[in-house]
Amino acid sequence: MNITESQKELKSLIHKKLRELEFPERPHSLYDPVRYTLSLGGKRIRPYFALIGCGLCGGEPENALPAGMAIELLHNFTLLHDDIMDAADKRRGKDSVFKKWDASTAILSGDAMYAWAFEQLQYYGNDDSFTKRQYALIMDIFLESARNVCEGQAYDLEFEEAEMVSMQNYLKMIRGKTAALISASFKMGGAVASGNDRQLRNLQEFGTEIGTAFQIQDDLLDVIADPEKFGKKQGGDIIEGKKTYLSILSLESGNKEETKILKNVLQKPVSGKEDVDKIIDIYTSLGVIEKTKATIKHHYENALEHLEVFESSIYKDDIIDYLNKLINREY
Amino acid sequence: MNITESQKELKSLIHKKLRELEFPERPHSLYDPVRYTLSLGGKRIRPYFALIGCGLCGGEPENALPAGMAIELLHNFTLLHDDIMDAADKRRGKDSVFKKWDASTAILSGDAMYAWAFEQLQYYGNDDSFTKRQYALIMDIFLESARNVCEGQAYDLEFEEAEMVSMQNYLKMIRGKTAALISASFKMGGAVASGNDRQLRNLQEFGTEIGTAFQIQDDLLDVIADPEKFGKKQGGDIIEGKKTYLSILSLESGNKEETKILKNVLQKPVSGKEDVDKIIDIYTSLGVIEKTKATIKHHYENALEHLEVFESSIYKDDIIDYLNKLINREY
Repeated sequence: MNITESQKELKSLIHKKLRELEFPERPHSLYDPVRYTLSLGGKRIRPYFALIGCGLCGGEPENALPAGMAIELLHNFTLLHDDIMDAADKRRGKDSVFKKWDASTAILSGDAMYAWAFEQLQYYGNDDSFTKRQYALIMDIFLESARNVCEGQAYDLEFEEAEMVSMQNYLKMIRGKTAALISASFKMGGAVASGNDRQLRNLQEFGTEIGTAFQIQDDLLDVIADPEKFGKKQGGDIIEGKKTYLSILSLESGNKEETKILKNVLQKPVSGKEDVDKIIDIYTSLGVIEKTKATIKHHYENALEHLEVFESSIYKDDIIDYLNKLINREY
Repeated sequence: MNITESQKELKSLIHKKLRELEFPERPHSLYDPVRYTLSLGGKRIRPYFALIGCGLCGGEPENALPAGMAIELLHNFTLLHDDIMDAADKRRGKDSVFKKWDASTAILSGDAMYAWAFEQLQYYGNDDSFTKRQYALIMDIFLESARNVCEGQAYDLEFEEAEMVSMQNYLKMIRGKTAALISASFKMGGAVASGNDRQLRNLQEFGTEIGTAFQIQDDLLDVIADPEKFGKKQGGDIIEGKKTYLSILSLESGNKEETKILKNVLQKPVSGKEDVDKIIDIYTSLGVIEKTKATIKHHYENALEHLEVFESSIYKDDIIDYLNKLINREY
């Protein structure tokens, strides 16, 4: 995807800061997995969002770098622990810490990353250009997102066991699991720039809408993306019997026969190509794919409305450009 | 053990505050294990130490309650995760969360407790009677202890695999695993009371000495305590082949024959009563039990010296009384 000069500049600030993060040499079993996890890369969208949140409120984006690092470390900590719970061998195409080392190492190095995430926020505690209120607010936002992520993951695990999940509960889960950190990224950036209450509220809502759209889009792409470009097998979620926006919508609107087929496939531990085709046929005939596209568009449009309170700026242009690319991504 | 009126009062403040801690009802799989863990009890010595640290610096001990809660939650979070790594079925005589639920639940509810621990410290961020410097310092102390605990546990796991562990490394491990939180408890209490640098430094050292003595005493009691009163089998550490202050001291001072027997027993996955007796004979003949008692006494005496900078107070009397009972405990 094309990237503007200003996006490039912010991304380069982020990568520089990430490279500057230093962890102790020992104990090796604690910090080697931390260094390894961060070396696996990732889009680093959360730090970018923190810098944008800061810029939107008239601040110097660079000031939000420690907040961005905190969120990125928190995000990576959740991946470390999620991989244990999901018994996932792979992470970004490489061995997960859980697989490369073991569960104990992944638990403990995740815990250490959690502490180092908070550590980044001490920058705002120790620099006199930030008030106590700002520092406490940044902490508050960060803490709320940390709790929300745990709650979202807990719902996700609970829902794996449940036969039916309502759309309302599904949306609650993704608001915690995916949207919370994205929303916190923007809002922390805003707090760093001393954004007013109205600005912070809009940044939060903006992030929640984007995060929600982003997750539903992921659910959709699992079904419609070109597997080559998406980097995942088509219908991976169907094969694993995962609850997605599409499967829940189908279960809510399908007739008796369709519901039976859906439940049947989703309850199998592993399904085959034939099952995937059957389910995609149901999605198509129920209009679920079109409805899902409309929902995503709706959330993106909601997001854009929350930008209206912000004055024109290069950061506003950048994030709108970024969002337009996201809406239109095909993988 | 007899308890003074003032100790009783502080303990009752702590229990009241603990009962007032509230966690959301849902997700059940996240917060039921948190409530369960806190219901298992414990001596709550860390909150007590935080209140004492505050009192020693002339503060109102009650002000250190949120710091005490933070440390207690952090401590319980480490127990939740340690039980997974040790595959421990029991915790305080009841099923561990790991056993009662499963590893995923223990990981995730531990992560949530971690966030709720930090949450307690927001009291200092939101109350105007504490300066920004104080709030940031309390956070700093807390964060340092969280990192140290992870590092101590990582060393502990590394040492399980190692054939030999030097005394220096063993002491580094227990300074992280046991002493860090105790030391942070006193020091955070001092920071709440705006203690000066000299006071805070002495509180930290005081806690480190006590924590170190406490762990070595635990190692000793495993061998010499009346199993009925201690609540554990005699020689439990020997049976499990754990490195302890006594086994390391013996390996450093034993002759070839004794070293061979020691290594042999400590390398078995599980040893029997006969092995325990053999090892205790070696400990006795090498004078290791007496030397260990002397080390404990030495650390307690060092601890007392760090109290000298504090003016006389009921809290000073209380902690000296508390320490004297600890030195003389037989289980």
